[in-house]
Parts: sequence; structure tokens; C-alpha cells
Amino acid sequence: MAVYTDIAEDELRAFLADYDVGELLSYKGIAEGVENSNFLLHTSQANYILTLYESRVNADDLPFFIGLMDHLAGTDVTAPRPLQKADGTCLGHLAGRPAAIVTFLEGMWPRRAKAHHCHEVGATLAKLHRATETFDMTRPNGLTVGDWRPLSDASASRADSVVPGLKNEMAACLDRLEVQWPTDLPVGTIHADLFPDNVFFLGDEMAGLIDFYFACTDLLAYDLAVCLNAWCFETDHMFNVTKARALFEGYQSVRPLEDAEIVALPLLAQGAAMRFLVTRLNDWLNVPPSAMVVPKDPKEYVVKLRFHGAIDHPSAYGLDL
Amino acid sequence: MAVYTDIAEDELRAFLADYDVGELLSYKGIAEGVENSNFLLHTSQANYILTLYESRVNADDLPFFIGLMDHLAGTDVTAPRPLQKADGTCLGHLAGRPAAIVTFLEGMWPRRAKAHHCHEVGATLAKLHRATETFDMTRPNGLTVGDWRPLSDASASRADSVVPGLKNEMAACLDRLEVQWPTDLPVGTIHADLFPDNVFFLGDEMAGLIDFYFACTDLLAYDLAVCLNAWCFETDHMFNVTKARALFEGYQSVRPLEDAEIVALPLLAQGAAMRFLVTRLNDWLNVPPSAMVVPKDPKEYVVKLRFHGAIDHPSAYGLDL
Repeated sequence: MAVYTDIAEDELRAFLADYDVGELLSYKGIAEGVENSNFLLHTSQANYILTLYESRVNADDLPFFIGLMDHLAGTDVTAPRPLQKADGTCLGHLAGRPAAIVTFLEGMWPRRAKAHHCHEVGATLAKLHRATETFDMTRPNGLTVGDWRPLSDASASRADSVVPGLKNEMAACLDRLEVQWPTDLPVGTIHADLFPDNVFFLGDEMAGLIDFYFACTDLLAYDLAVCLNAWCFETDHMFNVTKARALFEGYQSVRPLEDAEIVALPLLAQGAAMRFLVTRLNDWLNVPPSAMVVPKDPKEYVVKLRFHGAIDHPSAYGLDL
Repeated sequence: MAVYTDIAEDELRAFLADYDVGELLSYKGIAEGVENSNFLLHTSQANYILTLYESRVNADDLPFFIGLMDHLAGTDVTAPRPLQKADGTCLGHLAGRPAAIVTFLEGMWPRRAKAHHCHEVGATLAKLHRATETFDMTRPNGLTVGDWRPLSDASASRADSVVPGLKNEMAACLDRLEVQWPTDLPVGTIHADLFPDNVFFLGDEMAGLIDFYFACTDLLAYDLAVCLNAWCFETDHMFNVTKARALFEGYQSVRPLEDAEIVALPLLAQGAAMRFLVTRLNDWLNVPPSAMVVPKDPKEYVVKLRFHGAIDHPSAYGLDL
């Protein structure tokens, strides 16, 4: 949650003049998204979300993110639709930052995900992978296997203060991941951050996905591994195989996994755990005194990393080969 | 800004069953209010604000706050209206906390207040004072002259780390305020925290007041002194007499001040500065490591305290006797 930047009304009105949104009636900073500042706009026409892109987001990547959301508007994956300005482009400038307006997506993210949510998430992730086969932009994943070592090194000297022995444990795991990371699996556009707070439901129905600001071009099965970690563990970090089975069934009801993807899953899941461990560890050890965001505890991902490291066959996930 | 407590959807649905609000479509934590957790609810009927009262608010005071907003609904002061449950009461319980729903107030608070805003604020504050003459509940001000000393003592040992000499300066000022604080001025229901972020405008028009969680029964002119500090200084903490004149003219267009109130204003303004100095100083020196709120710099109120302490006649505020 974060609102990093506040906006003055006259600036906002000037910005909105380029968009066909009606008359501004209110705007409020909302506790959503960690990387950017988000505001809920209420106008005489509708509710909208205004995002100011903060410095953690590379401005060169914005056309990809906006282009992806725009592409999804024509598919069976519901997502916020970027609004076009009078000149046909979507990105503007506000309060010294790149900014965009998207449609307001109804729905609520599940604070207590159940197996049926996992099934829907799996199916929708597969729909996203299918729907973006015709999306022709690409973006390299900036947080994939080669990027974890430098991030890990940055916090290595203090890693053992979080979990004793963690520095060596991570180094050994990175050695393995760097050697074994697969390169021959199906690649496409992935969300890469599909945690529960990025998935909205209305009742039991999937209402749509948000926050595409880690989306990139990478292994499709890696996206599923991120979801496995994000959706199929309980709050005590115990693995729930019923939820995993639901996630995979949902996914495969739309896009059946290849055998090579299934075989690679324990490794991909370790990688997905490492990716969030290294960033959370850095955030945890480097909270600025004026932080408005409470960092997430990295220990959760140490437990998940170990869990997947001990798996020698994907049947432990409830998957058949 | 703060969202201290998150809510699970099933809890929220159970809570909403008591209210006639239609079907829940979304809820988002909003960056508004420092003492409580606020959510914007979007339902099939309208937008609403849901407030969870956190521990800093005394639950025994809630009927006063809710009663005040309910009273204002029948007056010329626009404010959020508390929604009644089926049993006719307004307060419920959610996520282990007292909770209430109020109507959504359109409008935006002025990030860069101008003199015409100050005029409207003055007039609306006077309307509030008039409109609550028929409000029969009372609540003692828990942050008035007798309360400042213990708060000041709590941070005295570290006050000089914020501003050298501040400990003695505050003690001397408190000596004066405690002896001279007026007791014979008109008393009524005051807002007591009417900062710009609690006042909404639509264009140049007053749209209403929010956040009545410091409201209490106290000197009416003290409320005006709080506004003088909150609205009539520039971001460099320099006094703007044009704004002060506009504030007082607006106020007196609805409720002319008595001579004794005008004479007392320099002292009341020192008290109003002291009230925010002591709480900000405590917050500043006691930020918990996991704080989601960036504390406000207390030094601003040191400057204001000194400014009012140097005034020997209310004409310095642009006021005539």
C-alpha cells in the first residue's frame, strides 16, 4: 500500500483536460499497489484509477504495460483498460511523473483464498497466456535467474540476521538455479506478480486482474510457479495440496502443460521463491525511516524455498505426468 | 493517511447485511484520516465511506461523533451522514473494532488554499457553531489547556533534540497559558481539527466538512484559532494576513465575534499552536518502526507558537476591535 505523491487539484484538472472523463468530483489516494501512487477518481461519468509511476518503475517499460492492458481489453481476460487522450496515446505527465488513467475494475481480492479461487486464478492465468499470443510487444524479465545473485549479494552481509545461515543457503541454491534454469520451455507474456491482491472476484466469479507492472516476456510455467507460491500456502506457510491441485486443474482446463513444464515445476517454484526472497530481503533490510510501506517478512519465502528444494517429483504438487 | 486494519470480504458482507446499501462491488483502503482505518465502499447503490475506529479513539466518544454528524444532516452544514442499521442505531462492529458507514461526500480538499477558501472555511465554521446550538450532546475537549502539560512532559527530555531550547520555551509558554486561559467566552460544539484536508470544495464552492473525531464542547473562538494556524500560514510558515482577514470576515458574516473573543485571540492562537505542537512532538519522537504514517514535523508549530506569542493586539490578524 502506498501513496507516495499527492496531487494538487489544479494540476489534476489540467491533466484530465486531455481525457474524456467528465467533471472531476473527488480524488482519493488509495492503499493499493506498492510501486506507484494510486488515486481513485470519481467524476460525473464514472470511477477511474489514476496511477502516478514512481521512480521504481522504468518509464521505458510503460508503453509495454499500457499496451498489454489495452490488448487485454479485446480478450476474455478482464483487466483495467487504459484511457486514451485526445491524441490517441494513453500516457500523460502529472506531478513530475508519468501518469495514466484506467477504468475502475469492480471486485474484491480474496483475503482468505479458498481452493475455488485457486482454480479460477489458474484458469485466468492460462487465459492470459493464451490471450497474449497475439500481443506483439516484449519486455525482458528484469527479475529472473541472472538478476537474483546481485540482489542477494546486496543483502548477503546481513542475511544471517534474518535467518541464521541464510547467506550460505541462498548462495548454494543460486548455484543450482543458475546451472539448471530451463531455457527450452514455452515463452510468452506473463503477469509475474499474480498475488491475491492483484486478483478481483465478485462473489465466486473471477472479476479480473490488476497491476501489470511486473509483466514481462518469460517462461509461462514460471508464472504458474509464482502463483503456486502466492496462493497455495497457508498463513502458517504450510503447503496446501488441494489448492495446488485446483490451481493446476484450472490452468490446464485452458492450456494443458507440456511434460517438460511439469518436470521443471519444482525448480521453477524454487526460482519463484528466490525471486521474492531476494527482493523482500532487500526491502526488509533497507526500510527508509520515512517509509510509508511496511515491508513484507522475507522469512515466508525462506520456508517456501526449502519446501520446493525438498521436492523430487511434481506429484507432490498433485500433478500427474 | 492510514489503513491500519484490513477487512476480509465475508466479514464485511456480514456487517453490511444490517445496512440498506445494496450489493457490495468493491472496497479499497483510502489514504484519509490518521486516527482510523477508512475504506471506500462501492455498492450497486452508491459510494460510501466505512470507518473502523482504531484504539486511539475512545469508543465512549463515538455516540457523540456519530450524533454530531447525524445532527448536521438537518442543517446548512454539509457533512457525511451516518447510515442507520435496521435497528435505527448507527454503530456496528467489524474486524474487532467499532465501525460506521457514512455517505460519500463529493469534493476535494485544497492542497494550495487561497484567500477565498479561507473565507468559505470561516463562514462554514460559524455555520457549524450556529447549527450545533440545538445539538444537545456534549464532550469535554481532551486536548485543551490542562492536557498540554502532561503531553509536553512526556517528550520534554528529548524536545531540545528537535529545536534547541524547546523544553524551556514550552514550559514558559504553558505557565502563561495555564494562568491566562479564558473561561468566560462563548462555548459550543467545535470541530477542533479543521485543517485543509478536512474541508472539501467543488470548484470554488464549499462542499462540506469531514473528520469530526476531535469534535468536542469548548470555546468557539478556539476553533477559529485552530483554523487561523491551519489555513493562514504559507508553506514556509510565514503568516498571511490576507488569508486571516478572509477567514475572520467569513466567520463574522455568519457569527460576529464578541469583543472578548477578539481580545483573547492571540492567546487562543498560542494555545491552538501548543495543542498541535505537543501531539506532533510526541508522534515525532515516538514513531514505531512499523509506522504507516509519516509524522508531521513539529517545528512548524514552534514557529506559529512564537508568532502568536509576539502579538500584543488582534489588529495584527487584520481584526478590528
